[in-house]
Amino acid sequence: MKKIRVGLIGATGYGGVGLIELLINHPYVTIGALMAKHDINKPISAIYPHLKGFCDLLVFDPSDPDCPDDFDIVFYATPDGVGQKEASKWLNNGVKVIDYSGDFRFNDKDSYASYAARIGKAKEHADPDILPNSIYGLPELHRREIASSDLVGNPGCFAVSCILGLAPALKFGLIDSKDIIFDAKSGVSGAGKTPSPMFHFPARYEAVNAYKVTGHQHVYEIERELAGLRQSKEIKITFTPHVIPVSRGIITTIYANLLPKVNLDSLRNAYSSMYSEEPFIRVFSHGEILNTTDVRGSNFCNISLNIDSRTGKLIAISLIDNLVKGQAGNALQNMNIMMQIEETTGLMYPGSFP
Amino acid sequence: MKKIRVGLIGATGYGGVGLIELLINHPYVTIGALMAKHDINKPISAIYPHLKGFCDLLVFDPSDPDCPDDFDIVFYATPDGVGQKEASKWLNNGVKVIDYSGDFRFNDKDSYASYAARIGKAKEHADPDILPNSIYGLPELHRREIASSDLVGNPGCFAVSCILGLAPALKFGLIDSKDIIFDAKSGVSGAGKTPSPMFHFPARYEAVNAYKVTGHQHVYEIERELAGLRQSKEIKITFTPHVIPVSRGIITTIYANLLPKVNLDSLRNAYSSMYSEEPFIRVFSHGEILNTTDVRGSNFCNISLNIDSRTGKLIAISLIDNLVKGQAGNALQNMNIMMQIEETTGLMYPGSFP
Amino acid sequence: MKKIRVGLIGATGYGGVGLIELLINHPYVTIGALMAKHDINKPISAIYPHLKGFCDLLVFDPSDPDCPDDFDIVFYATPDGVGQKEASKWLNNGVKVIDYSGDFRFNDKDSYASYAARIGKAKEHADPDILPNSIYGLPELHRREIASSDLVGNPGCFAVSCILGLAPALKFGLIDSKDIIFDAKSGVSGAGKTPSPMFHFPARYEAVNAYKVTGHQHVYEIERELAGLRQSKEIKITFTPHVIPVSRGIITTIYANLLPKVNLDSLRNAYSSMYSEEPFIRVFSHGEILNTTDVRGSNFCNISLNIDSRTGKLIAISLIDNLVKGQAGNALQNMNIMMQIEETTGLMYPGSFP
Amino acid sequence: MKKIRVGLIGATGYGGVGLIELLINHPYVTIGALMAKHDINKPISAIYPHLKGFCDLLVFDPSDPDCPDDFDIVFYATPDGVGQKEASKWLNNGVKVIDYSGDFRFNDKDSYASYAARIGKAKEHADPDILPNSIYGLPELHRREIASSDLVGNPGCFAVSCILGLAPALKFGLIDSKDIIFDAKSGVSGAGKTPSPMFHFPARYEAVNAYKVTGHQHVYEIERELAGLRQSKEIKITFTPHVIPVSRGIITTIYANLLPKVNLDSLRNAYSSMYSEEPFIRVFSHGEILNTTDVRGSNFCNISLNIDSRTGKLIAISLIDNLVKGQAGNALQNMNIMMQIEETTGLMYPGSFP
Repeated sequence: MKKIRVGLIGATGYGGVGLIELLINHPYVTIGALMAKHDINKPISAIYPHLKGFCDLLVFDPSDPDCPDDFDIVFYATPDGVGQKEASKWLNNGVKVIDYSGDFRFNDKDSYASYAARIGKAKEHADPDILPNSIYGLPELHRREIASSDLVGNPGCFAVSCILGLAPALKFGLIDSKDIIFDAKSGVSGAGKTPSPMFHFPARYEAVNAYKVTGHQHVYEIERELAGLRQSKEIKITFTPHVIPVSRGIITTIYANLLPKVNLDSLRNAYSSMYSEEPFIRVFSHGEILNTTDVRGSNFCNISLNIDSRTGKLIAISLIDNLVKGQAGNALQNMNIMMQIEETTGLMYPGSFP
Repeated sequence: MKKIRVGLIGATGYGGVGLIELLINHPYVTIGALMAKHDINKPISAIYPHLKGFCDLLVFDPSDPDCPDDFDIVFYATPDGVGQKEASKWLNNGVKVIDYSGDFRFNDKDSYASYAARIGKAKEHADPDILPNSIYGLPELHRREIASSDLVGNPGCFAVSCILGLAPALKFGLIDSKDIIFDAKSGVSGAGKTPSPMFHFPARYEAVNAYKVTGHQHVYEIERELAGLRQSKEIKITFTPHVIPVSRGIITTIYANLLPKVNLDSLRNAYSSMYSEEPFIRVFSHGEILNTTDVRGSNFCNISLNIDSRTGKLIAISLIDNLVKGQAGNALQNMNIMMQIEETTGLMYPGSFP
Repeated sequence: MKKIRVGLIGATGYGGVGLIELLINHPYVTIGALMAKHDINKPISAIYPHLKGFCDLLVFDPSDPDCPDDFDIVFYATPDGVGQKEASKWLNNGVKVIDYSGDFRFNDKDSYASYAARIGKAKEHADPDILPNSIYGLPELHRREIASSDLVGNPGCFAVSCILGLAPALKFGLIDSKDIIFDAKSGVSGAGKTPSPMFHFPARYEAVNAYKVTGHQHVYEIERELAGLRQSKEIKITFTPHVIPVSRGIITTIYANLLPKVNLDSLRNAYSSMYSEEPFIRVFSHGEILNTTDVRGSNFCNISLNIDSRTGKLIAISLIDNLVKGQAGNALQNMNIMMQIEETTGLMYPGSFP
Repeated sequence: MKKIRVGLIGATGYGGVGLIELLINHPYVTIGALMAKHDINKPISAIYPHLKGFCDLLVFDPSDPDCPDDFDIVFYATPDGVGQKEASKWLNNGVKVIDYSGDFRFNDKDSYASYAARIGKAKEHADPDILPNSIYGLPELHRREIASSDLVGNPGCFAVSCILGLAPALKFGLIDSKDIIFDAKSGVSGAGKTPSPMFHFPARYEAVNAYKVTGHQHVYEIERELAGLRQSKEIKITFTPHVIPVSRGIITTIYANLLPKVNLDSLRNAYSSMYSEEPFIRVFSHGEILNTTDVRGSNFCNISLNIDSRTGKLIAISLIDNLVKGQAGNALQNMNIMMQIEETTGLMYPGSFP
């Protein structure tokens, strides 16, 4: 089989290196070029020494005329605002694009504008005409559309955790869609590679905090995706992110009011119905303790289902590795689907413990 | 002033050593004896070397006839079931008693029975006759009763965090009392000193998990105390504890539905009205990031108030050090009140950072 | 190719699970049975949930008559004293044996006795007759003997780090062999899976200590292997292990006096001469900062060479992942060699960062 | 007693906040002003929220004409190069000065030049005339000179650990002074408050590394102080610093060759002779495990003495909290001595565990 030639822009951040780690053992891929804004001309293994001998490619400035551009697919592991300016150029040349940021998570310009406002970016999308062609890259909800798309917006890490954790309960009408709370706790790597006072080791090792209370930008994609499952007119969620002193992992505790007569069996059936064929979702029941380390370094989402019979609430707990299923792993899963190869290729690792 | 002579049973656990650290610099206290079931005849500084030179008292078996018993007050820093068997003996001799466990948090035998069932203990209290004399030792709610009591049940660490974080909103009728969620995250020291597979360093350093989902025993005292604030017939809460890989600290994120016309000002007024004279409570507003390290090593409870205007919810965040305001510090605060000395004596430390 | 059928005894410890993680993606291996003393009849994925779907084999009691025994090779991921009692049984049936403990690191009974005394075990080896057939399983020093052996003693994790870090300097006669200091720092997983007060999260997260100062048992194998490189009559080393609050990783700082005229070039040449063809050793020069995370999760040993010209000393720094190159990875490397397959099969992973 | 009026320059770094934490409970001190280059006009408690209610002083720009300057003593908790430009101004007005940096650790300009070269600073001291009046602020070696000095250079944190750990062995001539190795491991707070890629939480939480191998600047003051103990012509040491993922703590493992007939008793006698009256030094013997947490948050230095009889070496282990005995605590100890008050005032805390 001819190898898929991959271009990676934003190769030196956590999202980039996470993808490189997966690609070097992917049987059908060759890395065509690594690109970034900083550390130009350095071997990637000088920045990430664990890659020495595995991948010693030099980092290109993507505007360098010598930079290769004969790719089959390009990943933008870049912040918001980069991919939207360049995607058309690739698409017009028959190169598929997967973008990690929010640039292509909204397929109309108004939704994008609301999102952009919340992160302090310009409300106008740089290339609104291609938005309708973009697909929200969560395979468990949009596998078929992804397979026939050339442009995929990889979901936000919190959004993956929230949507997968609650989708079946909404889809099968088991909960009140008006009152849903997501209490999410994320490891520090979710904030990326750039040092800051809040993530300086001495300030963080014993510190937990909530942040962006009531104001996190992932709220939009979560509400949109959940609403789409049930033709609800509107879903409004409460979402509170926290930072915890681990490197990797998101655990989201989800609270919703059960509709009458819903019990643990109906819940299990709903989740099983939606997820039993999913290669990367594992569902557990009340009483089993799920731990972020159970999904650390893997592309899995673990979900546990609990009912608080005293208050009639569903308490679903959803766990992912924010850098794998929440980012590079999910992006690679999208690539496999878009390139029509077995979806799990290069992703079937359990992670390591401890 | 004649020094207060303190007996400490359960001296070798985290709750014991935390109290010793405070007592050695308390100007009006002398430690009469340290007692425990294990490590008998060892100096406490052989178990906790940081105390060497500060406190080198030997650990007594409390049943040893040579063990001193001429105390003014006795602390039971022991698990459930110990203090209830012995409290009467002290009380009958005019010695006051503070118990860290659930033994004296419920002043009638039926409430105790519900609590005991949840932790797998015998439902019968060993000394039900003295229960009516016991006071729930949360000074912010029961300062006056504590001052005139000889028998105080120190609250559970989660309960301190939950109750203090929400009390004013309930007391002043700002929220719907029927739908309250406490999502609590605790450091590992809350589980005590005994090693276990879940708290083994390699298994825990990157691990976060929920546990006792829908089944934690602190629910009872939280519901009872909150109901008492508003003469509500009944309050039923949803409470989910999590363990995070820090040593000290509880952060509880509290969700409740605001009643009509309640805004941030009404909330601030309520909290200020109830807490402005409290020496150990600090209230913050939306947008200020609170961190468990802000209260680490101190007896303070920090609270932030937020409103999610999209969903009409209060999101209150409450932080304590589980071993200080959640345990030894609060116990010492109770002692100061019971002994009629200035309530903050020996407790006015800010902790250290980083 | 017919798959190699592996039996794993001690499957539920860190050394066991580390091997399972590697074996499930090894193209030429099938796991015949997992065996352990505890957790019998549980699926291994109930003990290590990250393995769910990857390996759900039940744990057998090895004495259970239903336990499979048709293996090509057996791993003893067990403490000292287990493998020596059972190895002959397998060897007599044509099954090869790799033992993680010290049971087969010494091929004469007197050396074994000195070692055993230091760890408080009986000095008599249970099966001294097979000792002469055992090979010390460090491929970089004994590849050829391992290839033709049926019985391999996998080295101690500290020993791997110390021996690989200094071997070329000794082999090529660049240092004074009489005065060598190894200052080693290990992550907590080196102490295994069993909880203990010293490795309880709250007691360990901020704690560093030296232990077994002057008395660690790995000294013997280090001295024996180093002496073998240079036909030295005797080498006596100073070795101080420390525990640091990381999960994985050993960094050993090695001090030795350089012989006259030795400079950085001669050192580099020596290391290059011995290691340039080694698949799992990477050598770095003065000024490059090496980090335990550079080898975390991989089978690599990274070494940096430095000269303190003020004092005429070599300062070599050697890093491994104690659970991979220091244990399961090195054991698998031995298996590949013993089974005459490509030595790096199933081991070429870079680990993940961060 | 009239309170000592303290000025603190560099109040917003770790060295500043560490001193504030101590000063707020010091019975004879009042803080006259907090000064810094950044965060001007903010309350210090906005930067360090744990101080809220304890110290809410605004931060002054020291060049602000409204900034108070009526101090009895000034602390420079600033980087190298700041204090040397301003000390004379204070001294001429009768204000004593303690500087945390290397600016006043060398009392002649040539020694200073060697030191400055190693940290990449200008070799010329800004005020060489006052250098001869400065005293190296290690009370255990220079208590008398400190008491009569107006200008004290607080020692480097590594230097405190190294010098205190070995001084008696050198002073009493028990070791070969030509071959001494200090293998030091420090927590991350030693690098200060400024974020950097190496100390970003995800990059550091599992990472240990050596750095400045053979090139750390503390070597000079260690050699000078050790030489002064024995009228040695020259002492050359080997010093290797490491960074470990803890916030606070230095553990230094010291290797030296014992002179003939020196045994554990002679060592103990030497350390006891020099240290038995020292309020902040605790000496332990072989076999007792010392842990950085034993001195965490306190001004103590713990030392353990071990002999490797196989190789004839002393292995001394020295532990401090780098931010207390290694910085702010030692500085306050100097202040107490300079102001003729009881040396331990405001410093007698054991720290807290866990």
